[in-house]
Amino acid sequence: MAKLSVAFQGEKGAFSEQAARGMLGRSVTAVPLKTFDDVFEKVQSRKVGLGIIPIENSLFGSIHQNYDLLRKHNVHIVGEVKLRIVHALLALSGVTIRKVRFVYSHPQALGQCSRFLRSLSNAEPVPVYDTAGAAKLIKEEHRLDSAAIASVEAARVYKMRILKKGIEDDHQNFTRFLLISARASTSTGLQSKTSIIFTLPNIPGALFRALSVFALRDVDLFKIESRPLVGKPWEYLFYLDFRGGLGDLVCQRAMSHLQEITSYVKILGSYPQGRTLGRIRQ
Amino acid sequence: MAKLSVAFQGEKGAFSEQAARGMLGRSVTAVPLKTFDDVFEKVQSRKVGLGIIPIENSLFGSIHQNYDLLRKHNVHIVGEVKLRIVHALLALSGVTIRKVRFVYSHPQALGQCSRFLRSLSNAEPVPVYDTAGAAKLIKEEHRLDSAAIASVEAARVYKMRILKKGIEDDHQNFTRFLLISARASTSTGLQSKTSIIFTLPNIPGALFRALSVFALRDVDLFKIESRPLVGKPWEYLFYLDFRGGLGDLVCQRAMSHLQEITSYVKILGSYPQGRTLGRIRQ
Repeated sequence: MAKLSVAFQGEKGAFSEQAARGMLGRSVTAVPLKTFDDVFEKVQSRKVGLGIIPIENSLFGSIHQNYDLLRKHNVHIVGEVKLRIVHALLALSGVTIRKVRFVYSHPQALGQCSRFLRSLSNAEPVPVYDTAGAAKLIKEEHRLDSAAIASVEAARVYKMRILKKGIEDDHQNFTRFLLISARASTSTGLQSKTSIIFTLPNIPGALFRALSVFALRDVDLFKIESRPLVGKPWEYLFYLDFRGGLGDLVCQRAMSHLQEITSYVKILGSYPQGRTLGRIRQ
Repeated sequence: MAKLSVAFQGEKGAFSEQAARGMLGRSVTAVPLKTFDDVFEKVQSRKVGLGIIPIENSLFGSIHQNYDLLRKHNVHIVGEVKLRIVHALLALSGVTIRKVRFVYSHPQALGQCSRFLRSLSNAEPVPVYDTAGAAKLIKEEHRLDSAAIASVEAARVYKMRILKKGIEDDHQNFTRFLLISARASTSTGLQSKTSIIFTLPNIPGALFRALSVFALRDVDLFKIESRPLVGKPWEYLFYLDFRGGLGDLVCQRAMSHLQEITSYVKILGSYPQGRTLGRIRQ
């Protein structure tokens, strides 16, 4: 039996890889690729079975670029997972926090750990392309005066020591990832979620009418977001997630009703609602 | 008469400063500050008259961090502007493109100019904290082998030469900025826009009912976005922009009706719809 492969954007040890392993198990084959376009291409052409992509972050919002790629490609969402973004300070074996003079990471990660960085009196932050790439660089160049801010997954991949974990200022930093496949899945029942995108004709009350197809059938909404289409004044693209799957008659009817109202609608997928990995107990 | 001051986050020459000057005129005093929190603090305590903050980008979505700061501070949105993000290659006088060995910028800007960077056979990209900071560094260290990717505003501020302009891969990159003040403004009529945030009780059809207060009064919506409140499952914060100002009776009535339905609502401001600076004619 062929082993399950999942493509992701970034260096080995990226948060996407961590999300994939948390969802699919440690033994899955994770395939690092350079761009999100590459991930969609490989999945659509069935060169890999699955792809994993970040779709929104609790601090930075929806990733429109990946919504655009979902719109353009013939792939389906088949699952989701939410991952708490935990930053760790990684170094080579034998290096202690006091020996660290340079801390490498992506500027966003350095910014998210600014309180911790200030507490290191002697260390200078050095921005690089990405978090896992920072760990890779320290490993490859055998730097004994440096550390990287990256995921715990990166520590495993590059066999580095975790000097400190959870060094981010704000622990309420979650990223939602979607699992995509060339084959559609069917999901049914209240533990399911369906994601769609649509555009509306530019007439007053169009959104209200579109939402009526869900409200009048007691279908719960999880997410709604509108986004102006660049270069097309007054035209908006909507992202909508609702409870239930396309195996449910009520959802099928809502979709067929929605098609009467919208100028364009695409069903991105119907899948089981995902777990949150690394949630903080409150 | 005291000169008009506007605070922004970043180094002098940042895109925020460019947006502020495009909106308020070249003679405005732009005050660079380290963080967005600093901008809100200075505005709220009336140490500066105005602040300018990015709120959404056409590629990367809404900036939730600034929505959170709008929610927490006693400030009002009094204006908006959309700025096309045009990246330029800047160098010291006497430096030509062929002499450039290192290109400094924020990783996101380097990524957005990847096609152009590949066309420079001999130049190596070097990630730094921000775009204007890259220009500042080259100026201060008098680097004759390097260039920065930054705004045209940064070229003016650091008196650098523009070797090439519009080097971004995707020209459809716009950022929407908001002008904030400690004093509320009143705006009236169809050329106005009002921004609010609200939360809903967790009952089916709550959003549909909330939108009815606008639809039943023929009030157009410009933007709607829901965002899960981290750590509070099933609770959502909504961002909504609608046409009209609080000087309009129909909008006052819609707001008072909305208060019957929502569990929390805050009016962020009522202001004239903003222009787009640097729009591409099509």
